[in-house]
Amino acid sequence: MANSGDGKKSGGEGQVTEITPRTEDFSRWYTDVIRRAELADYSPVKGCMVIRPYGYAIWELIQQGLDRRIKATGHVNAYFPLLIPQSLLTKEADHVAGFAPQVAWVTRGGTEELEEPLAIRPTSEAIIGTMYAKWIQSWRDLPVLINQWANIVRWEKVTRLFLRTTEFLWQEGHTAHETAEEAEEETLKILGLYKEFVETELAMPVIAGRKSDSEKFAGASRTYSIEALMGDGRALQAATSHNLGQNFAKAFGIQFQARDKSLQHIWGTSWGITTRLIGGVIMMHGDDNGLVFPPRIAPHQVVIVPIPRGNWRETVLPHAKAIFDDLTAQGVRVMLDDRDAYTPGWKFAEWELRGVPVRLEIGPKDIEKGQVMLARRDTREKLSASREGLAARIVDLLAEIQRSLFDRAVTFREEHTSEAASYDEFKQILEGRPGFVIAPWCGSAECENQIKADTQATLRNLPLEDSAGGVCVRCGQPGVARAHFAKAY
Amino acid sequence: MANSGDGKKSGGEGQVTEITPRTEDFSRWYTDVIRRAELADYSPVKGCMVIRPYGYAIWELIQQGLDRRIKATGHVNAYFPLLIPQSLLTKEADHVAGFAPQVAWVTRGGTEELEEPLAIRPTSEAIIGTMYAKWIQSWRDLPVLINQWANIVRWEKVTRLFLRTTEFLWQEGHTAHETAEEAEEETLKILGLYKEFVETELAMPVIAGRKSDSEKFAGASRTYSIEALMGDGRALQAATSHNLGQNFAKAFGIQFQARDKSLQHIWGTSWGITTRLIGGVIMMHGDDNGLVFPPRIAPHQVVIVPIPRGNWRETVLPHAKAIFDDLTAQGVRVMLDDRDAYTPGWKFAEWELRGVPVRLEIGPKDIEKGQVMLARRDTREKLSASREGLAARIVDLLAEIQRSLFDRAVTFREEHTSEAASYDEFKQILEGRPGFVIAPWCGSAECENQIKADTQATLRNLPLEDSAGGVCVRCGQPGVARAHFAKAY
Repeated sequence: MANSGDGKKSGGEGQVTEITPRTEDFSRWYTDVIRRAELADYSPVKGCMVIRPYGYAIWELIQQGLDRRIKATGHVNAYFPLLIPQSLLTKEADHVAGFAPQVAWVTRGGTEELEEPLAIRPTSEAIIGTMYAKWIQSWRDLPVLINQWANIVRWEKVTRLFLRTTEFLWQEGHTAHETAEEAEEETLKILGLYKEFVETELAMPVIAGRKSDSEKFAGASRTYSIEALMGDGRALQAATSHNLGQNFAKAFGIQFQARDKSLQHIWGTSWGITTRLIGGVIMMHGDDNGLVFPPRIAPHQVVIVPIPRGNWRETVLPHAKAIFDDLTAQGVRVMLDDRDAYTPGWKFAEWELRGVPVRLEIGPKDIEKGQVMLARRDTREKLSASREGLAARIVDLLAEIQRSLFDRAVTFREEHTSEAASYDEFKQILEGRPGFVIAPWCGSAECENQIKADTQATLRNLPLEDSAGGVCVRCGQPGVARAHFAKAY
Repeated sequence: MANSGDGKKSGGEGQVTEITPRTEDFSRWYTDVIRRAELADYSPVKGCMVIRPYGYAIWELIQQGLDRRIKATGHVNAYFPLLIPQSLLTKEADHVAGFAPQVAWVTRGGTEELEEPLAIRPTSEAIIGTMYAKWIQSWRDLPVLINQWANIVRWEKVTRLFLRTTEFLWQEGHTAHETAEEAEEETLKILGLYKEFVETELAMPVIAGRKSDSEKFAGASRTYSIEALMGDGRALQAATSHNLGQNFAKAFGIQFQARDKSLQHIWGTSWGITTRLIGGVIMMHGDDNGLVFPPRIAPHQVVIVPIPRGNWRETVLPHAKAIFDDLTAQGVRVMLDDRDAYTPGWKFAEWELRGVPVRLEIGPKDIEKGQVMLARRDTREKLSASREGLAARIVDLLAEIQRSLFDRAVTFREEHTSEAASYDEFKQILEGRPGFVIAPWCGSAECENQIKADTQATLRNLPLEDSAGGVCVRCGQPGVARAHFAKAY
């Protein structure tokens, strides 16, 4: 096995040797497992992380799966500058109010002090809007459907590996449309695309819905989100899709000559998914033994551990290599761990910790019997499998694990979703075992804020379909929607 | 055809409608064609460009082809922070001297003034070296073979689309090895990989060699480069590969316990290819009619233009679509331009300008005869081809065009490479038609500088094999190597 920078030690800032049990301290477990499995590490820059090869491989798989879907729906990629002049960032009033406290400012270039500070993009509406104003002139130029993969910097006070870091990676789509209806359609199409993507690839069931006004993106008319429930019962916003209305179009002068020759502002959307998703996968599927990766985004889907008896390099290894080749030919991402310096037992624990979905053991006795041993990471079941038809059996098993992880997460969410009829009940639920609480809400920010102050729970999102009815769980006024509340990351 | 942000107008900063002939003003032609074909545009940030979808699609193809090769040689990808504390950047003395004048500094985060300014990475040796010092402890951890795809900022005074921009995109490999020999082997392996990559994918013949000491990377022991000759006879450095020796290891304390238990510094390498390559492709293959893309990196390899006679949407379009499907099934990147608003003649000129390798025309008469018309972008030849076996014919044609562009560039380079026996001859050649001039060199920076002062030509690189002999073209001392000189970008 080539050692490609994913060596064995963590070192520095508290070497990680033992992993805190998940039930004992979820947050500590989370950090331990990331560092011990070498997904990421702290850097010398406050709040910035290093995504190590094993973690970055997951991001590459996320990128592939998502980029394919983004392109299949007619979008194209481009790249806009990292730096945004202050004067542009401040053009949209809500936008600057929302992001100004989080901006990193470049004030010096080489030896010269800059006349105007440049923001490192906290998001790219301002720079992209400026270019769209230049490029778009007629309804014939619409829609513009552009996405970019980029790094983002937001000055965060409290950071956490993957979930909230000063710099993170994401994709951001920015589109321009002729009509309000088209922009709304795009916003919801992408929300659906995100839901299908995370559910299919990450085995992460999510609730799609609309954000309340107080939780919407700075400068948006409407924000939609998908929300997942983590293993500790807290919610994680997994992606957002914003209908920007004409807010940015008016701030940046993005106008076009309409079919009736009148001059109109375009209708915009923007939407993104970030490296925090990796944190979500860890928190949703992991257990006390470490990571549990859904096969579709696992860097290694299968690890082969040959059992070293006698002259195993002559007897066992060729069989292991043949299986490696068979699986690779089937498109399975497989790793053959033939290192001498480690025992099979050590390797079992190591790859379990690293979340590899299937472990395949092969020793002299297995070869005699024409079989191998398989161990599922999700259920930790062991089963023997015939050497004949093995590759197809493993492909099926990977699909079964993917499905099973998704089902398990759905069941967990169902078990951690309650409906509250009264505010007392509402508060009581949130004091006990956390999870989603569904309750009617009157639509006022006041109730939303009071609920947060009383329970720490925030309004995650509101159903896409009409759900008016009942009375607000806090104030007793008529309910405009049945909201999902939860404590959240 | 979906309009995905690659609309028809340029607008702003001098709308581009006509393209300056290449022979009249090469530099103007270059900028015109980039903006007119919507590969890139100027941004509101000085020296920063926007890479538009058509240009970014080329970068994506470059990334795919190169990433595959980097991984096939055992490297893995990771991601390191954008921001580097000033104290780290200054640890390696030559490195900071080389890069300090080009650094953009972040001095404010949110509302707080930073105690220590943060550099936006001008290259990542400093931050990666810091992490390697933490991760590497034993010879068992070596080699470390990591690559990253990232954006880079260097404060440039004079900028030019793709070729030299304040922000650019690149990949940077950073490796750590047990011995000096291994580091040198890696440096040369990557140089060879780069050469094979640009020659195969970009049809760009290059001269591989070693840089002189005055042209090497700030902090490196040895720098190697590949150098291409552009259509105007100027050289372009297409990629570099650096042997860092133990310079960064000593500056950052990257040490390991060796096999003999002694504590040693690792031997490092770093290497990169940037978005400037896109500029190189444009300048190497383009002509007065616009871009000419080698098929392997052309966003669209074939454009189908149906000829609109009578009720063509019923008669011609279904045939065009069937051909589209056939070609797509063969893995050809094909575009069907069925827009009503433009005439075939307009479309021909447009896709020629945009460098699509093959245009396929199909009209009622072609359908009757069971054929189509093909037009090669490189030679502008037109030929008819039978509908039967068409997809295979086009796959062959694309390979032929790729080969032919490479051969044409080799011929051009040969015609523009001279050997100089005396300094007078040397100067005379460089006053006339530019290109490479090969001449013995004594190894002194003094002669190198004088040559540059006298002729504007720089020493591009020195052969990998021993080429000592003759006498220095400038001073008459014994020649240590036969160098390639040229005026360069």
